[in-house]
Amino acid sequence: MDTAVGAIFEQGQHSIKVPVPVYIRSSASIVGTKEGEGPFKDSFDVVGIDDKFGCDTWEEAESTLQKEALQLAIGKSCISKEEIRYLFAGDLLGQCIASSFGLASFQIPLVGMYGACSTCGLTLSMATVMIAGGMAEHAACVTSSHFASAEKEFRYPLGYGNQRPLSASWTVTGSGAFVLSSTKSEHDRAMIAGLTVGKIMDYGLKDSMNMGACMAPAACDTIYRNLMDFGRIPSDYDKIITGDLGSVGQKVLWDLMRKKGMDISKVHMDCGMEIYDQSQDAHAGGSGCGCSAVVLSAYILKQLEEGKWKRVLFVPTGALLSKTSFNEGQSIPGIAHAVELVSCK
Amino acid sequence: MDTAVGAIFEQGQHSIKVPVPVYIRSSASIVGTKEGEGPFKDSFDVVGIDDKFGCDTWEEAESTLQKEALQLAIGKSCISKEEIRYLFAGDLLGQCIASSFGLASFQIPLVGMYGACSTCGLTLSMATVMIAGGMAEHAACVTSSHFASAEKEFRYPLGYGNQRPLSASWTVTGSGAFVLSSTKSEHDRAMIAGLTVGKIMDYGLKDSMNMGACMAPAACDTIYRNLMDFGRIPSDYDKIITGDLGSVGQKVLWDLMRKKGMDISKVHMDCGMEIYDQSQDAHAGGSGCGCSAVVLSAYILKQLEEGKWKRVLFVPTGALLSKTSFNEGQSIPGIAHAVELVSCK
Repeated sequence: MDTAVGAIFEQGQHSIKVPVPVYIRSSASIVGTKEGEGPFKDSFDVVGIDDKFGCDTWEEAESTLQKEALQLAIGKSCISKEEIRYLFAGDLLGQCIASSFGLASFQIPLVGMYGACSTCGLTLSMATVMIAGGMAEHAACVTSSHFASAEKEFRYPLGYGNQRPLSASWTVTGSGAFVLSSTKSEHDRAMIAGLTVGKIMDYGLKDSMNMGACMAPAACDTIYRNLMDFGRIPSDYDKIITGDLGSVGQKVLWDLMRKKGMDISKVHMDCGMEIYDQSQDAHAGGSGCGCSAVVLSAYILKQLEEGKWKRVLFVPTGALLSKTSFNEGQSIPGIAHAVELVSCK
Repeated sequence: MDTAVGAIFEQGQHSIKVPVPVYIRSSASIVGTKEGEGPFKDSFDVVGIDDKFGCDTWEEAESTLQKEALQLAIGKSCISKEEIRYLFAGDLLGQCIASSFGLASFQIPLVGMYGACSTCGLTLSMATVMIAGGMAEHAACVTSSHFASAEKEFRYPLGYGNQRPLSASWTVTGSGAFVLSSTKSEHDRAMIAGLTVGKIMDYGLKDSMNMGACMAPAACDTIYRNLMDFGRIPSDYDKIITGDLGSVGQKVLWDLMRKKGMDISKVHMDCGMEIYDQSQDAHAGGSGCGCSAVVLSAYILKQLEEGKWKRVLFVPTGALLSKTSFNEGQSIPGIAHAVELVSCK
């Protein structure tokens, strides 16, 4: 078989060493009011004045987030909309309606994806595969979440004012978009060098108010496989960054990694723990497809762009539940997709 | 840029000529009782005795369909489960739970996809991209739908016994699975030679009991772009096969294609119109992710395998609605993903 140079093919290894460079040409982040009061408030491209973003429903508001984020990212890329060959997108809502209604007007062929809150990693991975495989020159990725549409989709109507335990996370209102390209430019934000696609991991946990613990085994599996496949140790990365494990999930992840003989505590960061500060009452941290996406755009890529970090493993994490599976007493399996980002400096 | 040989890169063209052959090594179909009484009853691998497939809920039954279909397809492929590098899967349920719970036990990295009833085309497309790009040797695709879980997800509880207009379709209970490989074998069912990823098309229709009409513009756009990109006319294909337009959607598609100067009526077939016969009271026809998938496995691939058809355009169609978007008065956009299948004879 005529395999691409450098792709990993040993049986039992599921990582991909990206055979030709894929560049993140540009990105954009747009967030809601609460995120705009957090530690990254000055780094987001747009902070909404009101979480409905001028729309009548929360779902339309989330669609608007995707539309605006993608528009901004394309604008910054100096690549025309017509040159973007494919869109890779997804969100948390049933039947991914935030993407369907947010992206229709672009008239770019759409690859719809679902990985719960790990979707940002999945879209970046598949866009990279398509570009590195020589089947597109430019592609864009966009994911989103919205606190109010997610509460409606998964939990209680906001009007109920239900109490949340400290292990619960707060769904980020925000969307992050990324334009990927096979051609190098003067202002690429980073390169994508490796991918580890996640497996479903199910430890039988059923507490939807403690999704960090549900997702931690998946994060552990993906990070461990990435390190094994590439023959690395945790400190080979400047940061290993999970999506939305939160403070409870982080502890579980560290413990699970220690059981495998790896200490990641010195290099681990979790987007959900960084996006809000303690005073914002978000409990375990932020979550949602939008969480890792906006932190990647606003903060992580900035560190890589400035050369402060050289190599980062970005691991968005997802909890594979629906209100139906939850109400039927099913467990909450997790999945995590890892993307290796390298500074262009 | 070092592009793969033969990939199409002209601006405005969104089709892919698959640069190296990708083979459908094996496939499997498993269906419910109603499908087992239809015209393809002798061609499906498994027909359930009862639509719950031994489970307690419709959702678990649908997960079981996926699990059994994939198990069968892998068994037929003579490729071990450990050699299958990636799974590409999706379904119609909120947060794609049929896939999450059906496929966890395989422990194969999962790329979750969402394209409504077009998902079969999307999974085959992305698996092909990954294999042709040299990033996997073998991959598997699986999609499903279930009449009862879909009615619960999108429409009314079955106990209501609501009436259905003649334009409504009947969600197929079934799952189709496919094992794709870069290596040729003695018993490949067909080759995948071309892909046209769909755009979201929204003509503003809002009738969820007439999804054929909602999806027809997307089918027209994808088929037309495929023909233009590859410089073909309809009769260059032995069949152009849509997923689940049904009898109403078929008329709309033919009319829309005629407006573009193309008559596809002689080569067009719709899986939804073939899976049930008139006496089965399915109204406009079958629908759902499972519809095109099981017809592909049980019937279309058989014709290609036997060399009765040489070249087929398989175009699963999807309606991008959720109960939330529907209840909020949104339109029902459509999407369709085309896969060109070529006989190995």
